[in-house]
Amino acid sequence: MTKSALQIARAAYQPKVPAALKGAVKAVEGEYTQSVADQEEIKKLFPYTYGMPVVTFEKTHDVQVKPAVNAGVILSGCQAPGGHNVIAGMFTGLKAINPDSKLYGFILGPGGLVDHNYMELTADIIDEYRNTGGFDMIGSGRTKLEKPEQFDKGLEILKQLGISALVIIGGDDSNTNACVLAEYYKAHNAGVQVIGCPKTIDGDLKNEQIETSFGFDTACKVYSEVIGNIQRDCNSAQKYWHFIKLMGRSASHIALECALQTQPNICIISEEVEAKNMSLDDIVTYIAGIVAKRAAEGHNFGTVLIPEGLIEFVPAMKRLIAELNDLLAKNDAEFKMIKKSEQRAYIISKLTKENADLYASLPEGVARQLSLDRDPHGNVQVSLIETEKLLSEMVAKKLADWKAEGKYNGKFAAQHHFFGYEGRCAAPSNYDADYCYSLGYTASCLIAAGETGYMSSIRNTTAPASEWIAGGIPITMMMNMEKRHGEMKPVIQKALVKLDGAPFKAFAAQRDNWALTTSYVYPGPIQYFGPTEVCDQPTKTLQLEQAK
Amino acid sequence: MTKSALQIARAAYQPKVPAALKGAVKAVEGEYTQSVADQEEIKKLFPYTYGMPVVTFEKTHDVQVKPAVNAGVILSGCQAPGGHNVIAGMFTGLKAINPDSKLYGFILGPGGLVDHNYMELTADIIDEYRNTGGFDMIGSGRTKLEKPEQFDKGLEILKQLGISALVIIGGDDSNTNACVLAEYYKAHNAGVQVIGCPKTIDGDLKNEQIETSFGFDTACKVYSEVIGNIQRDCNSAQKYWHFIKLMGRSASHIALECALQTQPNICIISEEVEAKNMSLDDIVTYIAGIVAKRAAEGHNFGTVLIPEGLIEFVPAMKRLIAELNDLLAKNDAEFKMIKKSEQRAYIISKLTKENADLYASLPEGVARQLSLDRDPHGNVQVSLIETEKLLSEMVAKKLADWKAEGKYNGKFAAQHHFFGYEGRCAAPSNYDADYCYSLGYTASCLIAAGETGYMSSIRNTTAPASEWIAGGIPITMMMNMEKRHGEMKPVIQKALVKLDGAPFKAFAAQRDNWALTTSYVYPGPIQYFGPTEVCDQPTKTLQLEQAK
Repeated sequence: MTKSALQIARAAYQPKVPAALKGAVKAVEGEYTQSVADQEEIKKLFPYTYGMPVVTFEKTHDVQVKPAVNAGVILSGCQAPGGHNVIAGMFTGLKAINPDSKLYGFILGPGGLVDHNYMELTADIIDEYRNTGGFDMIGSGRTKLEKPEQFDKGLEILKQLGISALVIIGGDDSNTNACVLAEYYKAHNAGVQVIGCPKTIDGDLKNEQIETSFGFDTACKVYSEVIGNIQRDCNSAQKYWHFIKLMGRSASHIALECALQTQPNICIISEEVEAKNMSLDDIVTYIAGIVAKRAAEGHNFGTVLIPEGLIEFVPAMKRLIAELNDLLAKNDAEFKMIKKSEQRAYIISKLTKENADLYASLPEGVARQLSLDRDPHGNVQVSLIETEKLLSEMVAKKLADWKAEGKYNGKFAAQHHFFGYEGRCAAPSNYDADYCYSLGYTASCLIAAGETGYMSSIRNTTAPASEWIAGGIPITMMMNMEKRHGEMKPVIQKALVKLDGAPFKAFAAQRDNWALTTSYVYPGPIQYFGPTEVCDQPTKTLQLEQAK
Repeated sequence: MTKSALQIARAAYQPKVPAALKGAVKAVEGEYTQSVADQEEIKKLFPYTYGMPVVTFEKTHDVQVKPAVNAGVILSGCQAPGGHNVIAGMFTGLKAINPDSKLYGFILGPGGLVDHNYMELTADIIDEYRNTGGFDMIGSGRTKLEKPEQFDKGLEILKQLGISALVIIGGDDSNTNACVLAEYYKAHNAGVQVIGCPKTIDGDLKNEQIETSFGFDTACKVYSEVIGNIQRDCNSAQKYWHFIKLMGRSASHIALECALQTQPNICIISEEVEAKNMSLDDIVTYIAGIVAKRAAEGHNFGTVLIPEGLIEFVPAMKRLIAELNDLLAKNDAEFKMIKKSEQRAYIISKLTKENADLYASLPEGVARQLSLDRDPHGNVQVSLIETEKLLSEMVAKKLADWKAEGKYNGKFAAQHHFFGYEGRCAAPSNYDADYCYSLGYTASCLIAAGETGYMSSIRNTTAPASEWIAGGIPITMMMNMEKRHGEMKPVIQKALVKLDGAPFKAFAAQRDNWALTTSYVYPGPIQYFGPTEVCDQPTKTLQLEQAK
């Protein structure tokens, strides 16, 4: 593998860990816990892992020689910066328990456990991947660990390798499943502990106990770097409106964080759109209004940040899509016989008034996408819609109407961008490198303490790393019951942007000013070697949340 | 202006300059020069600025007090990282001549000179912009300085402000025009010197005398950062082919440099396509061939770099576009009467056989774009074609054919990216920060030496900055005669990728290996504070060119 100069220099970085983890630790139990909601049902479903206490690790002088442990690790779901450091931290933690401990990685995600596809992770391999981005050390996958057959199949290989503890690194669903697996193995006296680690770029796995998920910090910094560069271009050329779509289907944390970092003219937050019951036309009118106001000042340029999942948060669009899915399923044969040029009129004639009007207002390309490109289940593929182009087309149309009415007199030209893959595998920032390494090390401490059904937890992360607090949170504590595929299931609550939370409030207080003045901030690229105020800052989201 | 932590820390960076420029300098004249071609004609067109000697600046102990100089500066054309540092270096250079010297910036490009739109650039302003990206300090513009009326109009404001020297920062055309202006002012005894500075992100302004244009280094590093991140993702997820289009309409230097930095599976070089007379189908077959070979090894993923200007380098496409332009101009009225659904057939019926076949082979969207979206002169807008999507669609089709024939058995899914605006206004790398500052400082030395019609030049830039060589090159030396808009004009030769040059040869020697193995390199983000091997490296292109 040819390495870049930065990769070689960065390999030498020793991730910072909480002072408590330097040397022998003891597990201190806190209060017994309850799930955030639906306590009775969750308790019934998790008799063996419900109600356990929060655990914190503290320094101890009582150094005990412990037996070697064989542990396994799985990367689950989409890549996030820092995954390799979780594994590296875990490796160091296992060796601290006993130098003869072994770590096995299951290949290409949870499927590796079920299919008995694994490799031993030795010091050489760990050294090769410490502080690097990507999940390519062992690969990741989307297989869901949900069924007893999978658990049993997995247990075979765990037994064969003498593995007594498994760490699953993943998002809310993967951690829910980790807890189900922990419960199953405990109920069946399998002798295998299961520990989870919180990962999502989208930032939607966080709560009172989990400050943030790893990867969010790095990815937002990469996106903010390129958004800042685009904004500097925008402000130099003064001739384009840049519509920038950002990762985040089920929550707008990334768009919000990037807005706080770069101060764009406009940022749409899906959760607000839903809460205010805004229509697509409301959003378009809001954007066009700011374009017109800036044009009146002679500023025919600007930036708009858009979360990837926006369309699915617009209540009227949700209703339209639901009716379309029904309509097209019911009339599939008839629909397929209709000439392409007449499909739009056909659909409009069949929809209820409200939905017909909305459908008629959509640009041709989007309307076609909504009726033609359906997934194997026949459903509209909302994720294929290029929201950034949809919005800019509709804004252009609205502005043309206003121009005809004499209400607007400016020039409007748009450029489009979508950032997702650019940040998911970036080398972790110092924050993520330290946070992940600490999460992995703590996972090993939880293993040594004999815990199962816990999520590794590092708190107080806006303080210097030495002051971070390491511990474990019972996963059941974060659960409630939700409907999934028509069935009530115990799941970890997804964290959406809270409209009464400090990050959104800080944004809302400044956005009208950012809209009209040009107050762009240019964060620049992630730095690994500079002064601490440049290299070691957590996200604005976290700083604002923790400042309360 | 709210500044990011990095911007604040970076403001303190003192750009490195050649040792010769530290203290008093003297201009040492080299040999008298000739234009690269068409010597007689160029000499006739530039009687006052032709044949001047190359100038080099050397340290001197003969410190002379010189009178104050008022100078002007213009940013011309599209933004490139480091423009602000050229101005900062120039400012410092002018103050070194005499602390009472003044610098004026003309606003929004050459138009600012003609329209008398300017501002004085004081130390406060310079401090605010040193080491930052963008051209927002005074703005840029695309007005071409070509006509005597413009020159005379400009001279009015220059006289009024007592400006005796003008520095024009721009690409090949802007520097050609700078020389025309220098010649004009000298011929008319206007008492205004004109100096050029070489800027292009595309990297196509370089030659025996000019090693590189500023901005190329930084922009390529930003693009390589995100390409590297995408490649790490590609190698982790192992399920997509990423088609990545990169800036560079008239030359493929950026794609080539990014390929050398990141080692993708495929990189297309427009100049090679033209030289080998490759058709679109040849390119598609080449890409599909590698996709198929990788699929046979179980690798259904990869990366393809594509230069923005590719289509215009495909000889057959050039012929098709030329015939389409003629055809649609001649039959405009008739064409507009034809139903949309019948336009394609109409065009095919009218084209000559070769062009009709090619047109028929294009995906519907591209074919429509070629016939419908024409510019105000009625010409096809090649730049609007999404080449990355065109190629991936055609590759998918080819693979489907091969699958039907049993020649291919894999999965092919594509993602698309286009990087341009992301890098044009990034904060300059150390290389560009130093190079630009030195170029600006040298421009002031050329002013002090009384020169005109010169381009500021910094050579030996693969050595440490202290060993760089500062001087000036007569602009006429880089000129030849070329047909522009039907007329023969004296212009600076555009530098295309040389197929017998070291950078292309290095790429060509390795590409077959990169195609099949996965040899991705992950350069990571530009670093400003780390070890010198990370922070101070010039581009691979320059290293290979200078190694000869």
